[in-house]
Amino acid sequence: MISGSFSLGLKKTYEGAMHVCGVDKDEEALKKAKALGIIHNIKPMAEAVAEADVIAIGIPVDALSLLLPEILDNCQKDAVVIDFGSTKKAICASVADHPKRVNFVAAHPIAGTEYSGPEAAFASLLEEKVMILCEEEKSGKAQLELFNELCWMLEMRISKMDPAEHDLHLAFVSHLSHVSSFALSQAVMEKEKSEEHIFDMAGSGFASTARLAKSSPEMWSPIFMQNKEHLLEGLSAYIDQLNDFKVLLENGDEEGLKSYMQGANKIKDIVDKIN
Amino acid sequence: MISGSFSLGLKKTYEGAMHVCGVDKDEEALKKAKALGIIHNIKPMAEAVAEADVIAIGIPVDALSLLLPEILDNCQKDAVVIDFGSTKKAICASVADHPKRVNFVAAHPIAGTEYSGPEAAFASLLEEKVMILCEEEKSGKAQLELFNELCWMLEMRISKMDPAEHDLHLAFVSHLSHVSSFALSQAVMEKEKSEEHIFDMAGSGFASTARLAKSSPEMWSPIFMQNKEHLLEGLSAYIDQLNDFKVLLENGDEEGLKSYMQGANKIKDIVDKIN
Repeated sequence: MISGSFSLGLKKTYEGAMHVCGVDKDEEALKKAKALGIIHNIKPMAEAVAEADVIAIGIPVDALSLLLPEILDNCQKDAVVIDFGSTKKAICASVADHPKRVNFVAAHPIAGTEYSGPEAAFASLLEEKVMILCEEEKSGKAQLELFNELCWMLEMRISKMDPAEHDLHLAFVSHLSHVSSFALSQAVMEKEKSEEHIFDMAGSGFASTARLAKSSPEMWSPIFMQNKEHLLEGLSAYIDQLNDFKVLLENGDEEGLKSYMQGANKIKDIVDKIN
Repeated sequence: MISGSFSLGLKKTYEGAMHVCGVDKDEEALKKAKALGIIHNIKPMAEAVAEADVIAIGIPVDALSLLLPEILDNCQKDAVVIDFGSTKKAICASVADHPKRVNFVAAHPIAGTEYSGPEAAFASLLEEKVMILCEEEKSGKAQLELFNELCWMLEMRISKMDPAEHDLHLAFVSHLSHVSSFALSQAVMEKEKSEEHIFDMAGSGFASTARLAKSSPEMWSPIFMQNKEHLLEGLSAYIDQLNDFKVLLENGDEEGLKSYMQGANKIKDIVDKIN
């Protein structure tokens, strides 16, 4: 979805001047990507990596940490290798001492949906979104210039930060949201085993909070594992908040509940800014 | 929002044939409702209740339980009194033995947003949504006929159920979603106190799970209180699920995490049906 949207987004500017080669372990996905106009042709990884000017990698973060050194080993001298991983610390560490570290740009576009695969890609996904850039000082000048140009063409805003800071913040504002949704889905489906027709009454509120529970386990399990410590901190804080609410409810403390919710209402300013 | 949307939705059919009188303790809200074409005029409750053919009540559920007997006392002999409360057991109990119980239709439209007040009302809110009807057997024949006609005109689908069943199911598929969102908002805002710029990285996933945290404490506190026992059951099940996930993560059980998420993925069929 992410690398496909990156390709479709850039086609709007570079159509004709750009040739996109697809690499994936899933052949069906490649065929679909070709049919959807996301890629022009399909090649084995070694061949594609050896030829490419820009290499954009959108795969699970554990595979990223493993493959990235090999991709840098084999890429062209001036190539730009960009990753789209949702964690940054382990990925940056995997190539920290690589002789071709300058070829790598550590990135994370803050964009996505609960879907994955080429059919979920669309040209405007990255438009007006934030592209996080980590360890800018370790990327080459030419690589950064091209990266900046691509982000500009995609109408993305670049935000620079440290990989550790990235992972901590993402644990709270993204990874924790996914866990809250997976767990909500499990709790309600468990109840449905004893109660029929429970979902007849589910409305847009439920859909909103349970939407992320549709997300890919193959993408998210490695993210959670690579960001384990920060996510555990976030999860503990979240469970503490739920227990605080539970105590207020058990005590029938209506004023306490109102005050709790008034505090939570302050999220309005933040949520309303997100597009 | 709900009663305003009810009025705007019906105007599409009955414009000219319908005169809507607004009653509220908030005079500003009434002025706005008039300016927005939701109501034609403003009257004190006693006067409005004594004149109305249809009385639609969209107020916090604790106020509903208190006011409903008085409204039935004073409504016309053939009037239809409809409530839009998000709980049904306490509301139905408040008029169970009322001599004019036939005038009351216990309803709950499964529709809404995180906003409230007249400015949040819109004509299509109720369109193609479910209208829950409780204790149909206790409403009069003429009242049910008019209620059915109004739902038909609003393109709503009526779903009949017992008040206790309603409250149990709503605890899981609506009230729990709201708590999950309020608590997520609190946990992330708490973290922001020690970390700056945390929200620069919040994307659509966070917005989706935190959206309901913008909901009105005045509306939701009485809902949680009236549905306390079921909601506590739901909250305990939810906290248990979060703790299960936490143990898997602590143990670095990647296969266990994937299997947990694959289970949660099954919510897809349900979420995709919600409009």
